[in-house]
Amino acid sequence: MQNMLTVDEAASWLLSRADAVTETETVSLLEAGGRVLAVPVVATLDVPPHDNSAMDGYALRVADFGQPLPVSQRIPAGHVPDALQSGSVARIFTGAPIPSGADAVVMQEQCEVQEDGRVTIQKAPVAGQNIRRAGEDIANGQTVLAAGQRLSTADIGLLASLGIAEVAVVRPLRVAVFFTGDELVEPGQPLGPGQIYNSNRYWLVPALMQLGCEVSDLGIIPDELQATREALRDAADFADVIMTCGGVSVGEEDHVKAAVEAEGALNLWKIAIKPGKPLASGKIGSADFIGLPGNPVSGFVTFAVLVKAFLQRRAGVADAAGTTTVRYPAAFDWGRPDAKRVEFLRVRRVVRDGQTVLERYPNQGSGVLTSCAWADGLVRLAPGQAVAAGDQLDFIALEF
Amino acid sequence: MQNMLTVDEAASWLLSRADAVTETETVSLLEAGGRVLAVPVVATLDVPPHDNSAMDGYALRVADFGQPLPVSQRIPAGHVPDALQSGSVARIFTGAPIPSGADAVVMQEQCEVQEDGRVTIQKAPVAGQNIRRAGEDIANGQTVLAAGQRLSTADIGLLASLGIAEVAVVRPLRVAVFFTGDELVEPGQPLGPGQIYNSNRYWLVPALMQLGCEVSDLGIIPDELQATREALRDAADFADVIMTCGGVSVGEEDHVKAAVEAEGALNLWKIAIKPGKPLASGKIGSADFIGLPGNPVSGFVTFAVLVKAFLQRRAGVADAAGTTTVRYPAAFDWGRPDAKRVEFLRVRRVVRDGQTVLERYPNQGSGVLTSCAWADGLVRLAPGQAVAAGDQLDFIALEF
Repeated sequence: MQNMLTVDEAASWLLSRADAVTETETVSLLEAGGRVLAVPVVATLDVPPHDNSAMDGYALRVADFGQPLPVSQRIPAGHVPDALQSGSVARIFTGAPIPSGADAVVMQEQCEVQEDGRVTIQKAPVAGQNIRRAGEDIANGQTVLAAGQRLSTADIGLLASLGIAEVAVVRPLRVAVFFTGDELVEPGQPLGPGQIYNSNRYWLVPALMQLGCEVSDLGIIPDELQATREALRDAADFADVIMTCGGVSVGEEDHVKAAVEAEGALNLWKIAIKPGKPLASGKIGSADFIGLPGNPVSGFVTFAVLVKAFLQRRAGVADAAGTTTVRYPAAFDWGRPDAKRVEFLRVRRVVRDGQTVLERYPNQGSGVLTSCAWADGLVRLAPGQAVAAGDQLDFIALEF
Repeated sequence: MQNMLTVDEAASWLLSRADAVTETETVSLLEAGGRVLAVPVVATLDVPPHDNSAMDGYALRVADFGQPLPVSQRIPAGHVPDALQSGSVARIFTGAPIPSGADAVVMQEQCEVQEDGRVTIQKAPVAGQNIRRAGEDIANGQTVLAAGQRLSTADIGLLASLGIAEVAVVRPLRVAVFFTGDELVEPGQPLGPGQIYNSNRYWLVPALMQLGCEVSDLGIIPDELQATREALRDAADFADVIMTCGGVSVGEEDHVKAAVEAEGALNLWKIAIKPGKPLASGKIGSADFIGLPGNPVSGFVTFAVLVKAFLQRRAGVADAAGTTTVRYPAAFDWGRPDAKRVEFLRVRRVVRDGQTVLERYPNQGSGVLTSCAWADGLVRLAPGQAVAAGDQLDFIALEF
């Protein structure tokens, strides 16, 4: 089957067929960074758990202001205060609980301790000042994080502040990768005539790990039908997704296409994308098959704009499609738009005259992997869209 | 010693004292993601190594255009072609070497194969078309990546394309962390009156790991002088940097301050930063000591805007200070600027009317860790700087 699809059609098709992993596992908080929450997290306590002082200073009743006041107690953080005696202040430190009866904290810089130990407040306090209220951050019963959210560093801290020691997360997505092709040589080996180094393995494996996948790297599989079929069968036994690069466009000289068709089902697409075009999507048993274009820049861009979202949704991420697009003005012209294909230029953000603008890598050739290493993102151009400096462009950060 | 510093003074002071780790180690390419290059990488070959076809199609001499041409050879990728016979075309596939004598490739969609096997080219070719030149991506001898660069996913692919199988990187920065404080309870334990959960450990450890540090997490150390001194001494034996949260501002009730002073040297700073203020910097033997403020939001922000760059420089990253500031217009008003301190608001990027703008978290209180989990960045406001919707603001992405 040979289809011609737009980028958006291919993206929707892939996302709609990304069945999220449903198996979950429980991990301790320090292992949970980057993992995908399997269930929503609901607070079972107030954070902070008690009214507390935002300052080092003195807690008092506002009504007592106007005369020097004796210090009736001292409340460090973590201590349980007594009720505040009328006509007195409590020495209090940041984070310490507010004693009952007190309705304000005055910072120590606005207080003067007299020789007899009594404290003069220099400025009239306002009820509630410098008091952090119980539940100000999080209220008991509040849903704090949603299922399907990938846990950030700050999320982990937030869960800890709720006393949560372990969380239910989706088990990692298992991705098997392999590479075929007579012309491919592994780095470190000498390069024969006509050969090139297998660079795809070296950006694809780290990219998958960055996304939190459990990667089985099968390396280079001999370019023979039987070996390729066996590799696919073995991989389909344990992997959720099997990926490869190259060998799946029309007229290419290898056995991946035939092997996938023999072991399962294959869609060979031409996508109206530049750089890029061929993309294979299929099924071997219960495993998905994704064949990226063999050209490293095409593969990298196709991964960034189509496959990454598929893998994230497959791994249980709820907003995998991404809802926030960021736009910046171009600091370049681009007078050679592709008439029929959506084009993704490799760009970098820089500040000029106090404004963030986009520069493009000079050579946008599909053979120039340097453009991807140089770039911090891609801009998406519609078919036929030329760019003049100042145009606002959609920016996709390269975050893998 | 008690100093009052601006944010920029503190940042410069820290960076100027960040002695980069000089020990290096050699790692294989698939282990090199996120590591810091110890030496520049210079290409020892052209990439691509030979002129090759950017298309599936037919290679020919432009001068032969105008008549049906026989196919004299077939060149898949990885094969070594013969010189092109005059008056013929070569069937060629993407990535395959251009045969000597050929000066253009015509894509197969613009060719017609006749019954006798000869090929008619439908459109006059231009010399050089669809040929990727040897060295177009990288020229032999070119410096590809600089020392002190943290290796991205695309960088690893680029190194592979040069045939490089292993790279010299700076050994990871060793960071020991510990926590003290009577009021701290570990998540999973019941919370007594006046106590709070130790959330700092749970954002700090993942943040350090995200930056590539080798973290020794010593957990909660009993709040006693002798125990704290011993922990510091032990940590100084192996760690490059020792970090803790809290216990180092004026009037706080614990032994960290006294212990650091007894074992080494300590600077207690008040920094004109909001949220934040206290920051401790010191030295224990050859190890650096960094004491973040104990309030989680203050600690998180201080880490993001001051300590992260120090750690990166210490880990060998050349451009740790960061050169690219990104600016976006505010979609909010902020009428309560701090008169004396630089303020960092927790914000998120959203697209409104086709433009990326910043929203702020409603509650910017320093006790509200939810603001950090919600945010994807911080904006920096000068002392006294109010914000009106539309103002361009400096944005610092939260990337750890």
